[in-house]
Amino acid sequence: MNRKRRKALVAMGTALGAGLGGTLMGRLSPAAAAPLPSPPLPWPYVKLDPAAVAERAYWSYPDGHCMFSSFAGLVGELAEKVGHPYKSFPMEVMKYGAGGVAGWGTLCGALNGAAAAIYLASDDPDPVIDELFWWYSNEKLPDFIPEESPAPVAPSVSRSPLCHVSVAEWCAASGLKAYSKERNERCARLAASTARYAAQILNAQRAGTLTLAHPAPDDVKRCRACHERKGAMENIRGKMHCTQCHTDLEASHPDGESGKSGTRGG
Amino acid sequence: MNRKRRKALVAMGTALGAGLGGTLMGRLSPAAAAPLPSPPLPWPYVKLDPAAVAERAYWSYPDGHCMFSSFAGLVGELAEKVGHPYKSFPMEVMKYGAGGVAGWGTLCGALNGAAAAIYLASDDPDPVIDELFWWYSNEKLPDFIPEESPAPVAPSVSRSPLCHVSVAEWCAASGLKAYSKERNERCARLAASTARYAAQILNAQRAGTLTLAHPAPDDVKRCRACHERKGAMENIRGKMHCTQCHTDLEASHPDGESGKSGTRGG
Repeated sequence: MNRKRRKALVAMGTALGAGLGGTLMGRLSPAAAAPLPSPPLPWPYVKLDPAAVAERAYWSYPDGHCMFSSFAGLVGELAEKVGHPYKSFPMEVMKYGAGGVAGWGTLCGALNGAAAAIYLASDDPDPVIDELFWWYSNEKLPDFIPEESPAPVAPSVSRSPLCHVSVAEWCAASGLKAYSKERNERCARLAASTARYAAQILNAQRAGTLTLAHPAPDDVKRCRACHERKGAMENIRGKMHCTQCHTDLEASHPDGESGKSGTRGG
Repeated sequence: MNRKRRKALVAMGTALGAGLGGTLMGRLSPAAAAPLPSPPLPWPYVKLDPAAVAERAYWSYPDGHCMFSSFAGLVGELAEKVGHPYKSFPMEVMKYGAGGVAGWGTLCGALNGAAAAIYLASDDPDPVIDELFWWYSNEKLPDFIPEESPAPVAPSVSRSPLCHVSVAEWCAASGLKAYSKERNERCARLAASTARYAAQILNAQRAGTLTLAHPAPDDVKRCRACHERKGAMENIRGKMHCTQCHTDLEASHPDGESGKSGTRGG
């Protein structure tokens, strides 16, 4: 399928999903007009084809950016295979996460959308999200190459689930600009890569073979031992790389790991 | 996708839907068993009572934590006042954002949930999200006090929309622990505060009186002038406070604002 045809199909699918409501509302009997209550989570999951998820995510990107793209890749495939209730989900809302939510650069939209999709479909979502976020932080990405436009895009390692950091690291690695068409292509491929890996590990969880292949690095574990839950200080929450932002730890940790208290010095 | 493009797609979808109606009607039998398709965004908005939104958010917190709480405050009130389509939204999915998504400490769940709700209900969501995120970053929060448990909770200023930073700043300000029952109460009130302010500015937008009361600080504007869109470097995306993480800018900006290139040094 060529790019034009794919794009047309995606646009038609979105428009159909978005636009049928009003028409049907007018034509259905009063009984049919009552909305079905949303069933409790998790919704039924069937094994996904990771390649199809990636393709769908990639071709959804032009219609709604990163969060919409990864969510549409996963939930669009589930809607096609399972139908209700996935089919009724107002996917359009996921556009809010573009650029780390309205360009704020907070959580990468590809991760935000994938996490939401994982939560819909998994009966134990946190281990899947953990594996996905550490994978994203530590791998050279994007690793998805669309058949129709195989020109290379520079990969980079974000060391972070945050959009701001991920884009800055990519700009540094590629020498390209944050609002270039190459960055746009990179983020479309990143959303496809992320949705694909999410499908792989959702499949693995369903098959009983999910492992934490990308565990927290040792230096993060060391920080967490004091600062996270049940640590002596217990003054933070989070699982991100610590020293990526906390570059001045020497001042507050003069004896290695026996640090003083402090907000940023940790 | 901008709102104009969205409206064009919606119009196309309605036309397509009208053509397909007969076929779909045939497939929807028995009619009452078919789910309603989700209508296009934005969904109908009616003026909300910010106090009721805050109460609903606060009391939703024990059922699903921060993201669920702020989303349920806003969308629960809209479901009560408007009904469909808000009533069919599977609100439970918003639990994925707890603790900055599965405890990762990325985007504060109260903001993640409020941003999603704003996107459902506003015909121009980005200015509302901008005002909400800067308000959250710069105000002393939480500022919601439940009638039933008015005991004070230490307020703090996060300077960031990130959960990790927000919690760390609160721990530093309060001297209390990140997994204490006081931190839990603080986050419930923070979600209520956030949902309440979101309702206030959604109301203001609908009344035509929305202003950016909390603009980006001057130092952030200075950084953005070089590093953000159309700046000489254009090597980042984001709207967060810069110097909260970039504490070592002196090394890369020896002459004040004429900095050298670099990933973290900016």
